[in-house]
Amino acid sequence: MLSPAQLSRLRVVLVATRNPLNIGAAARAMSNFGFTQLRVVNPYEVAFREARSAVGAATVLKQAEEFKTVADAIADCSLVVGTTALGHRELRHPLRRLEPGATLIRRRLTSSRVALLFGSEKVGLSNRDLSHCHWLMRIPTREEHGSMNLGQAVAVCLYELIRGGKILERNEKEKPATAADLERITAMLLDALRVSGFLKPGASSEDKVRRLVRHLDVPADDTTLWLGMLHQILWKLRRTSF
Amino acid sequence: MLSPAQLSRLRVVLVATRNPLNIGAAARAMSNFGFTQLRVVNPYEVAFREARSAVGAATVLKQAEEFKTVADAIADCSLVVGTTALGHRELRHPLRRLEPGATLIRRRLTSSRVALLFGSEKVGLSNRDLSHCHWLMRIPTREEHGSMNLGQAVAVCLYELIRGGKILERNEKEKPATAADLERITAMLLDALRVSGFLKPGASSEDKVRRLVRHLDVPADDTTLWLGMLHQILWKLRRTSF
Repeated sequence: MLSPAQLSRLRVVLVATRNPLNIGAAARAMSNFGFTQLRVVNPYEVAFREARSAVGAATVLKQAEEFKTVADAIADCSLVVGTTALGHRELRHPLRRLEPGATLIRRRLTSSRVALLFGSEKVGLSNRDLSHCHWLMRIPTREEHGSMNLGQAVAVCLYELIRGGKILERNEKEKPATAADLERITAMLLDALRVSGFLKPGASSEDKVRRLVRHLDVPADDTTLWLGMLHQILWKLRRTSF
Repeated sequence: MLSPAQLSRLRVVLVATRNPLNIGAAARAMSNFGFTQLRVVNPYEVAFREARSAVGAATVLKQAEEFKTVADAIADCSLVVGTTALGHRELRHPLRRLEPGATLIRRRLTSSRVALLFGSEKVGLSNRDLSHCHWLMRIPTREEHGSMNLGQAVAVCLYELIRGGKILERNEKEKPATAADLERITAMLLDALRVSGFLKPGASSEDKVRRLVRHLDVPADDTTLWLGMLHQILWKLRRTSF
């Protein structure tokens, strides 16, 4: 997980974005993952205005800065990384897959600012834009359909940046029932099966039912309820079995 | 990286989606990462029609299947995972972070079908929808702004599924029961609980029992025997209940 200082050092730079929904979506993903610094370069003017009035990521959008050129937008950053779907373009830059690339970005963010560039919906980053980049990063999409939706590409990149994490939250994995609990469940189930005539007395079928219960992986938290249900069924079976 | 067979075993299930752009965005992310099976449950009708005419993910959308209920949409799956932003809702399911959750899903996809559920834009998955889930998965967003855009959430989850770049291990554990089998077991158990007086008619306790059954890990090979036992108990309960 990135520290607040690291989070604040990343600049997400959207270049020549046309669709206001995409600016809004980028801002929302930033907010979801804790990033704050959005920069837009020559957005289609209406797009930026409309995006600012969108819901969901108000703070990020309000603080967003607008620039005329990529050079201006990245001037205070020590590492500039372009994103690409790598279709037609001839490769003139070192290219890293998202995962190792994110590791390098995280490391750099411990001490200085990093710009992460996303190009326009139609053509991506231009060669001029790319010339400002130290290297390029690619999300591992299929060759046959590499180009991602802009908002989704931003979300996936930011997720990879924060995910390298240790564990934030307690592990909710349920504790399994103890052997004693399982045996209690088994015994009650066996009684119900005997009273209802499913089981003839005899050890081999008992073992089978016992195995069956062990296959189940009963969570400890659920045992009381299972015992309660079986108890009631058994009570009813017995009450009416004479 | 997932094998083609694994990719084809995942069902992305969108429940009650309203915005056609989100259905289109989900389909596009699926196509980017190589998944093919999209299912929609009760989409806002116009949304599904409009989405089908969207560009970018034509094949996935053309093959998309429409269902009336979550139960139908997941019937052929042996693992059903709900996604959640975990705001208001009280937690009644095991919750896994995206990364360990994806590992379990990948493993299961080596042998059987998995459904990954996404709820509606406004309210997410309902308690009824959730009662069909074995466990829930959460993208590690900020507590202060946890709720992601639907299309972005789908993209991030699918990315995590394909990124785990390694091992296609075969799962040697016996094949798990399908959702349809679990629902059959649930229905019979509910009948037994009603006849024995444990359950008063009413939806909330039904959902609770459904959840309880999903907490178990019923092997496919055991389902016939469980159904047989329940059938006998139920028969006896009914025969003597007059």
